Amino acid sequence: MSASDPGLLSLVPFVSVDAMMRIVWDIGVERALTELAAYIEEDFRRWELFDKTPRIAAHSAEGVIELMPTSDGATYGFKYVNGHPKNAAAGRQTVTAFGVLSHVDSGYPMLISEMTILTALRTAATSALAARALAPPQARTMAIIGNGAQCEFQAVAFKAICGVECVRLYDIDPRATRKAAANLEGSGLAVVACGSSEGAILGAEIVTTCTADKRFATILTDNMVGPGVHLNAIGGDCPGKTELHRDILLRSEIFVEYPPQTRIEGEIQQLPGDYPVTELWKVLTGQAQGRRDARQITLFDGVGFAIEDFSALRYIRDQVARTGDYQKLDLLADPDDPRDLYGMLLRHRPESPPK
Amino acid sequence: MSASDPGLLSLVPFVSVDAMMRIVWDIGVERALTELAAYIEEDFRRWELFDKTPRIAAHSAEGVIELMPTSDGATYGFKYVNGHPKNAAAGRQTVTAFGVLSHVDSGYPMLISEMTILTALRTAATSALAARALAPPQARTMAIIGNGAQCEFQAVAFKAICGVECVRLYDIDPRATRKAAANLEGSGLAVVACGSSEGAILGAEIVTTCTADKRFATILTDNMVGPGVHLNAIGGDCPGKTELHRDILLRSEIFVEYPPQTRIEGEIQQLPGDYPVTELWKVLTGQAQGRRDARQITLFDGVGFAIEDFSALRYIRDQVARTGDYQKLDLLADPDDPRDLYGMLLRHRPESPPK
Repeated sequence: MSASDPGLLSLVPFVSVDAMMRIVWDIGVERALTELAAYIEEDFRRWELFDKTPRIAAHSAEGVIELMPTSDGATYGFKYVNGHPKNAAAGRQTVTAFGVLSHVDSGYPMLISEMTILTALRTAATSALAARALAPPQARTMAIIGNGAQCEFQAVAFKAICGVECVRLYDIDPRATRKAAANLEGSGLAVVACGSSEGAILGAEIVTTCTADKRFATILTDNMVGPGVHLNAIGGDCPGKTELHRDILLRSEIFVEYPPQTRIEGEIQQLPGDYPVTELWKVLTGQAQGRRDARQITLFDGVGFAIEDFSALRYIRDQVARTGDYQKLDLLADPDDPRDLYGMLLRHRPESPPK
Repeated sequence: MSASDPGLLSLVPFVSVDAMMRIVWDIGVERALTELAAYIEEDFRRWELFDKTPRIAAHSAEGVIELMPTSDGATYGFKYVNGHPKNAAAGRQTVTAFGVLSHVDSGYPMLISEMTILTALRTAATSALAARALAPPQARTMAIIGNGAQCEFQAVAFKAICGVECVRLYDIDPRATRKAAANLEGSGLAVVACGSSEGAILGAEIVTTCTADKRFATILTDNMVGPGVHLNAIGGDCPGKTELHRDILLRSEIFVEYPPQTRIEGEIQQLPGDYPVTELWKVLTGQAQGRRDARQITLFDGVGFAIEDFSALRYIRDQVARTGDYQKLDLLADPDDPRDLYGMLLRHRPESPPK
């Protein structure tokens, strides 16, 4: 190995946006979502093992930048994610993300991955995983209020994982609905574009809200939600951002990922800090009940938790280990003698320094 | 631009280990350290502007993985860094790091950089910056106890920034001292390899301790430290890891970066939580006094703070903007319509899906 070759330990696998899309199509979107949901369920079932902390958020007038770390004791992961509602107007994503998975025993990163697409996949997989445990078992119709970047991922995940056959779309911007409907052509889903929230929820046993405004908004009012419905509220995910009228919450059995985070960021920020909620991982392990009866309103107040990103990174790590389809980043200095960092620098000194 | 080209907004400049070494040699090590110290000083002078939080640490039996975020309101930065003392035995670095700089207004990353080398540079630059304000002005001799990866960077920074002419080296492992002495040949410094800590500190007006053991150790005992000395203690940087006997602290005027972090990680974890310390930024802005007299013992209890990494990333960003010497990572999904993330995925579907 020449002096200018990066050492073997220094090379970290990197999954670019392009590589992520190749992975998804190699597996197929529906199968990838289903496998991803299985990884998330596996980690939710060993929930107590994880280091858990609410995300570390840097808020500004324009949005938020967050770090979301967690560890299962052997592997450490974190995600960098931003949320900037005004980005769309400038041609940027509202939410972009990347993540890192590391070895706890050495601290060395083992994977760096784009997570803008991966976050959309894991959010949809988590929503569908929750709905499989909470929605009426015979549910075949889902309304989706908010037809932005998350919408089609949700639709396809609910088809693959919950057997949803029909989606009813509404967005205050009809172009967003047209975009989503066009993208879902050929997905095998019946798609109905609706002119109002009220129209969209007609006959829907599942209602997903995924709007992007960073403010208290009332996407659903109390009289719109009938008995037996499962609500999948994923758009409210930061302080000051909610989608459901408070009265709906009071009529619902509420399920959450990690209460200390959801109480800050979720729909339940509208409720007292001790309002009873059920943790999804307890439903998945049988320690708590999911849906009790056909008339109950269930609400998954999803804000996205670090363990889901950890599961998603684990899934992608296993895929790239299988396919070998990744770049190698020269990210870590790796001198022959670990104490000789300066010597490595010296050995890279050009023969005649330019200045 | 074809459908498979990553969009312009999605490409994030990446500074590899190799690129970092090219940047350093293009500028010259001493000049790079001096310029870096100026960036750090600039940010310390606007200290009150920054979002400050103690680092977020995930501890394990083998070491620690930390995230260190900060923001000045316009730019956000964070560093990922590990500390694993046993790594060296396996041919790995005790400390490796990488960092990211982002736009606060969009949340989009503007730089990803290796920070193993950059952390060594910024630690040395910060130490020398503190010493320039705290050490006796006529100091020309520095002892360095602990001759691992940080040692030569410290020596060269103190030469460039404080005018140190002679370094006296000691390490419990004589091979580490030989390595450091060999690397400092041709640096312009007089180098004396010593057989003991007591020997190394003879005649030294500045004593740097940079050992790596993750435990309470006593590298310097009270009787070894005479009047007028400046102590630069940078090896103790996590809970349970210190280098100086408590009695030395009681005889010293203590200067720190960010008290809430230093009280957890620094030498002062041996002292009561309200023991008076002076913040370095206040000395640099003239709000607090540095060295008062020739007989005073000054101690910089350096643990490394997020703002120093922020300054270092800013410095590197400005260098790559000048040289254009960096890779472009396809890190961020960038569909033509930001809401059409799924459509971007669809447009990357292979003509005949493999499965």
